[in-house]
Amino acid sequence: MIRLFIASNLSADRPIGLEKAQTHYLVDVMRLAEGGEVAVFNGRDGEWLARLTRMSRPDWGLVPTVVARPQLPGPDLDLLVALIRRSRLETVVEKAAELGARRIRLVITERANPARANLPRLNAIATEAAEQTGRMDVPEILAPESLAQVLAAWDGQRRLMFCDEAGEAPMAIEALMDCPPAASWAILIGPEGGFSASERGRIRATPGALPAGLGPRILRSDTAAISAMTLWQAQWGDWRGT
Amino acid sequence: MIRLFIASNLSADRPIGLEKAQTHYLVDVMRLAEGGEVAVFNGRDGEWLARLTRMSRPDWGLVPTVVARPQLPGPDLDLLVALIRRSRLETVVEKAAELGARRIRLVITERANPARANLPRLNAIATEAAEQTGRMDVPEILAPESLAQVLAAWDGQRRLMFCDEAGEAPMAIEALMDCPPAASWAILIGPEGGFSASERGRIRATPGALPAGLGPRILRSDTAAISAMTLWQAQWGDWRGT
Repeated sequence: MIRLFIASNLSADRPIGLEKAQTHYLVDVMRLAEGGEVAVFNGRDGEWLARLTRMSRPDWGLVPTVVARPQLPGPDLDLLVALIRRSRLETVVEKAAELGARRIRLVITERANPARANLPRLNAIATEAAEQTGRMDVPEILAPESLAQVLAAWDGQRRLMFCDEAGEAPMAIEALMDCPPAASWAILIGPEGGFSASERGRIRATPGALPAGLGPRILRSDTAAISAMTLWQAQWGDWRGT
Repeated sequence: MIRLFIASNLSADRPIGLEKAQTHYLVDVMRLAEGGEVAVFNGRDGEWLARLTRMSRPDWGLVPTVVARPQLPGPDLDLLVALIRRSRLETVVEKAAELGARRIRLVITERANPARANLPRLNAIATEAAEQTGRMDVPEILAPESLAQVLAAWDGQRRLMFCDEAGEAPMAIEALMDCPPAASWAILIGPEGGFSASERGRIRATPGALPAGLGPRILRSDTAAISAMTLWQAQWGDWRGT
């Protein structure tokens, strides 16, 4: 079934006007007929079934009918990723949505890509990935911040898994298993050239920092982000064994 | 340091002729001068340091000087991936090289993408990723085979981790932890629409099959491949804790 993220509040029988792009997608691309059923979510009110309806011509809308799944909070996981080149950053955003990160923070580091991040495009990628993966919210993407500012304001209650390429950290699965539980988490991924020595020192000195290694090979940033989120989900998130 | 995969045998002081593309990369792109040092590997003789040298004009070559790292076999892990659309298949090949898969087998399934795989391009992607990630071999990519043939000829000694979207399998980390050790492994990833019911039945009935779930969200095939290889590396491969 088609799933759509909708910004409006969702309640039974209250019609929601569709944006032009959404109408085009449902009516022209997916050929949904009047009365056809889709699933909608807004990050607050759970997943609803909704029927396509004509509002005043030429507009279309959706009428929510019943709640299909109640809203459940996902794991409290932030992904902090250095600005890397566009195509790889887009991969990271898509995968963070699939792998259940709640927020994505873009970080400016010494070796980060100097190009500006296209936030509307990244938001569109996150929304589409959230629709397809079945989650009931869209990860929030924050505007780029400098690493120094992020670390200076760090809440020590939020554990910061730091993927350290320099090879002195324990393997990630071990670091994750051995650390005490925390209610909120973050994963920090550096740019292609890694963090500088002074950045690494500052990260390691941040309260809550958990250095973790990702194997003997050098990983691209997008790979490191996906692998780190996967291992975190398996140990502390919703991929845990019973 | 620049790393190059070289097909030739490597031994001390025996010059190796460079292909045109390699010469262009070293001399024109990277501006390496005569006597400049690179690392080379061929999948058999370890990683060597080598110096750029002029052969007969206009050709350039490399002269291996010393072994920098001995050849060590990587983990015996095959990645079997259904033919998916081009850009995502290319991502899978790049990531399989980074994540240490030894071989990549392309599989034709009921819902696979009918387009032909471009093996030379996939090999080039695997080679470049192997050069960058620091491994000492390039994963071999086999020509597409039908799933039925692959399963019919399956060697039951090779454990087959099967990423089952249908939700009846234990979580991957649990399935991996609970299964007895095996000397050789494979991971099987389906196409975007998943395996058909009859394909799933046939996979589950294959000797050595290990059904494993990848969390509560629906993953794209490239994400599933990366996550599954990561979890395998953390449990049985070279990302294990001590």
